Parts: sequence; C-alpha cells; structure tokens
Amino acid sequence: MSRGFPVAEYEGRLSRAQALMERAGLEALLLTTEPEVRYFTGYLTRFWESPSRPWFLIVPRHGKPVAVIPSIGAALMGKTWVEDIRTWSAPDLVDDGVSLLIDTLREVAAGPVGVPMGHETHLRMPLADFDRVRGAVEITHDHGIMRRLRMVKSAAEIDKIRTACAIAGRAFDRVGGIAGAGAPLSQVFRDFQRLCLEEGADWVPYLAGGAGPLGYDDVISPASETPLTRGDVLMLDTGLVRDGYFCDYDRNYAVGPVDDAAHRAWETLMRATQAGFDAAQPGARACDVFRAMDAIVGGGDAGRLGHGLGMQLTEGPSFIAGDDTMLEPGMVLTLEPGVALPGGGIMVHEDVIVVTETGAEQLSPKVLDRLPEI
Amino acid sequence: MSRGFPVAEYEGRLSRAQALMERAGLEALLLTTEPEVRYFTGYLTRFWESPSRPWFLIVPRHGKPVAVIPSIGAALMGKTWVEDIRTWSAPDLVDDGVSLLIDTLREVAAGPVGVPMGHETHLRMPLADFDRVRGAVEITHDHGIMRRLRMVKSAAEIDKIRTACAIAGRAFDRVGGIAGAGAPLSQVFRDFQRLCLEEGADWVPYLAGGAGPLGYDDVISPASETPLTRGDVLMLDTGLVRDGYFCDYDRNYAVGPVDDAAHRAWETLMRATQAGFDAAQPGARACDVFRAMDAIVGGGDAGRLGHGLGMQLTEGPSFIAGDDTMLEPGMVLTLEPGVALPGGGIMVHEDVIVVTETGAEQLSPKVLDRLPEI
Repeated sequence: MSRGFPVAEYEGRLSRAQALMERAGLEALLLTTEPEVRYFTGYLTRFWESPSRPWFLIVPRHGKPVAVIPSIGAALMGKTWVEDIRTWSAPDLVDDGVSLLIDTLREVAAGPVGVPMGHETHLRMPLADFDRVRGAVEITHDHGIMRRLRMVKSAAEIDKIRTACAIAGRAFDRVGGIAGAGAPLSQVFRDFQRLCLEEGADWVPYLAGGAGPLGYDDVISPASETPLTRGDVLMLDTGLVRDGYFCDYDRNYAVGPVDDAAHRAWETLMRATQAGFDAAQPGARACDVFRAMDAIVGGGDAGRLGHGLGMQLTEGPSFIAGDDTMLEPGMVLTLEPGVALPGGGIMVHEDVIVVTETGAEQLSPKVLDRLPEI
Repeated sequence: MSRGFPVAEYEGRLSRAQALMERAGLEALLLTTEPEVRYFTGYLTRFWESPSRPWFLIVPRHGKPVAVIPSIGAALMGKTWVEDIRTWSAPDLVDDGVSLLIDTLREVAAGPVGVPMGHETHLRMPLADFDRVRGAVEITHDHGIMRRLRMVKSAAEIDKIRTACAIAGRAFDRVGGIAGAGAPLSQVFRDFQRLCLEEGADWVPYLAGGAGPLGYDDVISPASETPLTRGDVLMLDTGLVRDGYFCDYDRNYAVGPVDDAAHRAWETLMRATQAGFDAAQPGARACDVFRAMDAIVGGGDAGRLGHGLGMQLTEGPSFIAGDDTMLEPGMVLTLEPGVALPGGGIMVHEDVIVVTETGAEQLSPKVLDRLPEI
C-alpha cells in the first residue's frame, strides 16, 4: 500500500477546519503536538521523540497552514504540501522560536487564536514560552475543533488502520512460536515486537500484557522476568504503527490447559465485545456502547471500556458512562471489556471497529471460537 | 543486570530536590511527565503512550512524594516506594483529577508550588485543567530544579545507559547482515530494530537514518522504500531503551566502495568527536565543547552538536554557542558533529560519553579506524 496521502486529503481537512473556525469565530489554530501538526501537513518523523525543540503549525482561517519550526526540520517539511515554512536555529536558550511565532501569528491572524486545551490534549512547548505568546496574542480554546475533526476518519485513514491491524494479526498468529511454558515474559515481549516488525510494522510504540493462572494483575506493567507457567493465561496488547497510524488490540492465550474460570471469563469478554459491536451504530452515543458492554462485564475500575484510535494509540471518544459523543460513520474505536476473576486477577479483550452507515465493521481479525491454547 | 534501583536511589533524589526547594522557597513540585514522575518513583510503564489520562506527582518540601493518578495505575504505583497514592476513575470528562489534585496540593503545600516550565519541558495535562489549578493554588517556575537534578546522573543511572549503549553496539556490529546494495531502507530500518530487540532492548523508541552517495539529505526523515545502492553511505541513529534508560548514537557504513569525499568527511567527523571528547572536562562549559567541535566541522545548521541524554532521548545541556552550563562529573552527553558534502548531502556521527572527575569516558563502543564497508 502506498505511503502518505494525496494532497486532496489535506485540502479536505483544511477546509473542514476552516469552516469550523468560521463558526467559532477563530482567526487561526495554533498547534504544537505531533498528531496535530501531521494532521494538516503529513509531516511524519520519529524526531518528536526528542523533547528539546518545539514545533508550531498555524492554521489560518484563510489560506494554507504556516509552519514555524526548527531549521533541522525544514528539508522534510519542504517535501509536504506546506509552502510557507519559517525556521529558526533551535535550541535557542534565549528565544526558542517564540518571537518568530508571535510575529507570524500577528501577521496571519487578526483575532482570536484557538489552542486545543480540553480533554486528551497537551501543549507541547515550554509553559513559560506559551505564557509569553499568551501575553502577546489573543489565545482561546479551540472549541474542540481538533478533537471533532480527528475523531471521524477518512476512507484513506481507515485503510491505514486496517493495514496496521492486519500486521498485528499476523504477529498474533505466530505467538505460539515465541511463547510457552518456561519463556520469560520479558523475552516474549521482545520477540513479539520482533514479529510485529517482521510482519510490516514501521515501529512498535506500545506493548503491554500480563500472565497468570487466573488472569493478570494489571494491563500496564512492563514485562517481568518471570517465566510463563503451564496453566497461565497470557495476554499481549499492542499498538504498532504503519505509515503513521496505530492499531490497538490484544489477544489472550492459554499456556497449556487452563482453569475453567479463565475459559468462562474469556467467553464473557466475547459476549461483551459482541454487545459493544452491536451497539456501535451510527446515531448511538459512546455511553450506549459502554452500557451494552458494562451490562455483561459489570463495574470494573479500568475507567473505560474502549476508545477512539488513529494517529494516536488512544483518542476520543471514551466508552464511559459520562461520554455522550454521538457515533458517526468513520469513527474508529476499540471495544475493550475487562472482567475480574476469583483471586483478584483480571482478563481483558480488545478489538478495533469502524462505524459505518449501516453499523460496526471489525478491523481487527476475528478471534477463534475458543481461547486459543499455545 | 538487575532492574530498577534500590530505594536509597530515590531517597537521594528526593533529599537533593528538597534541599533545592528549600533554597528556592518552594513548598512542593508538581510534576506531570513520564520522566519527571519516574525520576522520583521508579514508576515505569509504556502506558504513557496513551495521551488520554493525566498523571500527577507532588514532591513536597518535607516527606515522601504523593501520587495523584488514574485508578488504572494504582496497582503498579503500589509496587514502588510511594505510599500515599490517591486515585480517581479516569477519564472523567467533567473533572479529570483536577479537584483531587487541588485538594492534595492544598493539603501538602502551604506556599508556592513549582512546575517545570523552562527549556525542554512540557506540561502533560490539558491546559484548561491547568488553568483551573493555577486559579486555586500558587503556581510558579520550578527554578530549573528538575533540569539541574536530572542532568547529573548517579553511578546506577550511568550503568543503565552503558548497558543500553552496549546493546546498540551489538546491533550495529550486525548491520552487515541486514543491509547491502538492493535492500530498501525501510526494510533496513525494520531489521535494525529487530536486531536491537534481539540484543536486549526492551523497546526501540527512536530510529532515524539516511543513505546516499555523498551523504544524506537530513537525519530525521522516516525510511523511504528506496533500495541501497553500491557507493552509498548508510547512517543509522538509534535511541533504544533498556530498563527505562536510553542510548542515542549513530554509525555510518560504506555500501561497497564509496567516494573519497565520504571517507574524508567521516575522518573529519572523527577528529571533531575527539576534540569534543577532549574538551568535555569537568569545569568546562557546554559552549566550550561546542566550540571545540565547531572549529573542525564549521557552522552547520543542525542547531547543536550534541546534548544530554538519560531517561529521555535528548536532555540538557546543549552543545551550542549559547549554553554556558558547567560540565560536572555524572553528566551523560552525546557528541554529534555533522559536515556538509559536495552536492548538498550531510554526514553526521554521534557518540555517548560521561563526564568523570578526570575527563570524559566513552559509553558507546569505540569506532573502527576507518568508515566500515558492508
């Protein structure tokens, strides 16, 4: 599959943004994070792993985006459709692009500039520098425009997520070759990342998991050196990236025969996932999908039973009781129910779906009828 | 090598922080990012990849740190030395831990609360939520305390970085087995990450590189599908993680015989690196090390010729003309000179060193006498 997007993809994103800015009375958006900058430009680099340099993208109400970036990024940004690229030599301990940013904002925006500042957003620049910008330019909330835009994916974006899901699926199919009684969990984690790369992942930003006879302690711990034991349930949850888009789902495996309680828990998770799938109709609300799953798995404490995903591992909306976001065709979501087992362990399952005009479609591969044994 | 640190490591960090807080008149520090939270707790998880939930650590002037975190993290935080762990069920679209944070800050801090807001820092929480905190509690600059603390590594931290460097070194030694004329750069990137995992990396957050007959275009682009050609110079620059600590260095390879200009450029890079190494004495300033290298490679536009590293791929100080940070024993730094070649390409080299009482010591493996041919 080809890399990147045609320029029309970015033109569409820009014109949708500008229509929302018009309605909200914003003269520009000021964006600082990787997915926000990439959304409008296609600027894709792992260099964001370095926190040292700030990067700015200004999306004006009229015209194309303006990049205000460290000079080290000029060559790569020059390969995108962005034409107005202004650079400074970063890092600069006295003025790390702040004056250039303020001057550019004043030039392109005669009124309020919206910054994403709500749920699930961060500002990726030093706060003291942002306070200087705030003192010089009228900064306000972006009114949720970025969240709203990114929540609904284009057909091309959905294809990329589908590709990422398929890569992870091929790696999951090979878990029997790397995991079994005696293998330390840390080695399984390392080998599973290798499988993801072999199957086509560009990189593997996220892997979590756990193992235990009646489920696992939690789903965010790093891998221990403890060897897998016959009778364990092993869970691997990966967020790999292909061409800038994530998958995020997990699979459970029985390491040899496991307790019946683990089989029953897994079947409950399948029923809950199916209930979430059935509820994820266009026009339903995020909380409806939550309730459909929660009715089966009952009040866990993970905080939510799924979420959006795309350029980030997790995005809005959240499958919680308090999120009344209306589902729309193009939303890519995970269904992620969890259950408690006797003894204090938990088991979780996660799949990726996309909402279509007629209901949900699964993007992660279908699971087998039964908790697979390795 | 064993994982994590003994509690004494965290006690030392805490008492150094509290002494600096005393001097700065701060009643607490409020921390929100992964390395800041981990610095005082050892809380290590890849779950930070999910931007959805904020995490807070309060370091009071007296007593141990207090964690204010989503309930999903309680089990793992409970395994650290932190005792006071307060949780809420996140995400909560109405109050995502903000009231709990404000109440806790009021309880433990009678006066100003310092937040890192200078160069190379970010605030990892929604800005609108932070503005609520700022309205309720006296928030001020952390006076660079976190930067100062993290810049000087303990012996145990240096050991972890040394281990990460050795893992990358073993992967670099195997590049001849994965790269050669005809191999697409994207496949080389994928295979090199696999080698890093095989050699012991926990994960590989960063890989960049480039290839071309007279150097490469830039050092931050993702890998293209273009096959390597006989006569190319290939550069791979990796930031892999072992037990929460990074390495960050690169190696260049000649794909078959290459132009003499490439050999000369490589030799210039070696001379510049050696000059930086010789200059990195305790008591010298970061700008002195910059000048020693810049005198040999002459004004490039990358912005800096090296930087600190540790829990992040890049940290302070910066080898630039404007950074007068005094070098101290325990600082782990990269030397990263770059040169321009005829035709517009560049070549870069990077090594990792630690400043000791008597001068620099190299943590990345020594390079060969000559640009290696694969």
